[in-house]
Amino acid sequence: MPRCTDAFDFNTYVGRQAKLVEAALDASCPEQYPETITKAMRYSLLAGGKRIRPLLCLAACELVGGDPAVAMPTACALEMIHTMSLIHDDLPSMDNDDFRRGKPTCHKVFGEEMAILAGDALLSLSFEYIARATRGASAEKVLRVIADVGKAVGAEGLVAGQVVDILMEGNGGQGAGLQTLQYIHAHKTGALLEAAVVSGAVLGGADEAQVQRLGRYAQNIGLAFQVVDDILDVTATTEQLGKTAGKDVAVNKATYPSLLGLDESRKIADRLIAQAKEELAGFDRKRAAPLIGLADYIASRKS
Amino acid sequence: MPRCTDAFDFNTYVGRQAKLVEAALDASCPEQYPETITKAMRYSLLAGGKRIRPLLCLAACELVGGDPAVAMPTACALEMIHTMSLIHDDLPSMDNDDFRRGKPTCHKVFGEEMAILAGDALLSLSFEYIARATRGASAEKVLRVIADVGKAVGAEGLVAGQVVDILMEGNGGQGAGLQTLQYIHAHKTGALLEAAVVSGAVLGGADEAQVQRLGRYAQNIGLAFQVVDDILDVTATTEQLGKTAGKDVAVNKATYPSLLGLDESRKIADRLIAQAKEELAGFDRKRAAPLIGLADYIASRKS
Repeated sequence: MPRCTDAFDFNTYVGRQAKLVEAALDASCPEQYPETITKAMRYSLLAGGKRIRPLLCLAACELVGGDPAVAMPTACALEMIHTMSLIHDDLPSMDNDDFRRGKPTCHKVFGEEMAILAGDALLSLSFEYIARATRGASAEKVLRVIADVGKAVGAEGLVAGQVVDILMEGNGGQGAGLQTLQYIHAHKTGALLEAAVVSGAVLGGADEAQVQRLGRYAQNIGLAFQVVDDILDVTATTEQLGKTAGKDVAVNKATYPSLLGLDESRKIADRLIAQAKEELAGFDRKRAAPLIGLADYIASRKS
Repeated sequence: MPRCTDAFDFNTYVGRQAKLVEAALDASCPEQYPETITKAMRYSLLAGGKRIRPLLCLAACELVGGDPAVAMPTACALEMIHTMSLIHDDLPSMDNDDFRRGKPTCHKVFGEEMAILAGDALLSLSFEYIARATRGASAEKVLRVIADVGKAVGAEGLVAGQVVDILMEGNGGQGAGLQTLQYIHAHKTGALLEAAVVSGAVLGGADEAQVQRLGRYAQNIGLAFQVVDDILDVTATTEQLGKTAGKDVAVNKATYPSLLGLDESRKIADRLIAQAKEELAGFDRKRAAPLIGLADYIASRKS
């Protein structure tokens, strides 16, 4: 007879949550006329990513005692935004990538015009969906989430990171020191991860001190996420990643491994994860288990 | 000595309002690091369009007795969204246009990558700005505006219109009858104009009956706007338009003039404008003067 235990099993937890997220994403973006565009949106949105942003959002909401259903529309919106950034990033005039999440990229299947428009439609749907579908939180909190998420996407967030990344590449990676690299990472990846955690916490009813602590947790895992991304670009295969491996080296891009070596990069990632977990110390240990698990997952992921 | 009169002068009114809108737009999108992207955003946002969407939004707010300052962030957001759609529309992989508002298009000046990202950043800023900068309206009303505006942009609005337009063009314009043309116009142009009027009214404190009437006003002027656009493509010069004239004929596109002739198209535009004005009959005549003037302006504009 199996022993009854309340030990937290991360894989079981993630499996269950990811299933909820997939169902919610499916419902958030129904296929409708004109089908070409909703098919293109759904093709990329439902391509089976790791759903880290939604998982972080839901876990932060639960950590502070909130009902994760309140955060689900925002969790979906974060994945829409992430998907938009991938679709536009992969365009021929941007990174010109043919594969993403192990499948042909959106523009390879639907053409460039539809890929641009699918990204635009996902981005506007993300904000619409938070505003329209969120239940169980005050309108003031929902507005704060929209403002925070918007800031994380635009010219002070994700786009800012992409722009500096592009400017550095155009420069042959020359002059991109550790500080610039950190700026790129903090904006290109960190800002949206932070918005995921903070918005989940806000919707769950966190007080300001909790929001601050969770913001720092998110900044640390955000940077760790990107350091690990840099490491995987060197160590993993294209098949493992579901996207082209070795791209950074091919374009002579400044990365953590190229600036500091693989060993030191690994150490930095581990240190960041440890710092992230420290921010969770003041919370109930059992409730914090999902966010601890997600931090470890980010450090140890293979793709 | 000039006679003292309270007669409404549309040009004076528009001049004053447009000046307020320009100042508000300038402040809504400050230049900041990384400058490349904020410069690209400002280049297109502050290129001096007609600002019809902001003007409609402010006028609708005032019509129902609201303070136009409450609607100003939304007015700016509508222009950001309109600008985003122009930037992305002009891209080489879309309409491939070199001129817009009499200036080289965004991608001609800043490159394709920056143009795509400038559009994305303007779109996310639009929602962020409504959420962050609106003062003097309840959070519930602001959320409704965000949901309405989002719907007007995405796969049920502007993008839907663009998609059907592209699909028809790919078809050599064949099979694009009046019904399809109306669908394209209602979504590509009408949806955002309607959102402008309705959101201004909601923020100004309109009741539901007023919102409905103003929605119908907007649908009529939206369709008239596009019929006039079709007419101008035939009758105006590139210099007058600030964008390439004669494009519809060149690509054999289904338009009102191509389907019904210039005279009949003109009559339809006039009828739509008359219908729009009828919807304003129940409002105070003096307060309705700006929206009446804007309807006439849309019908008689030369660019």
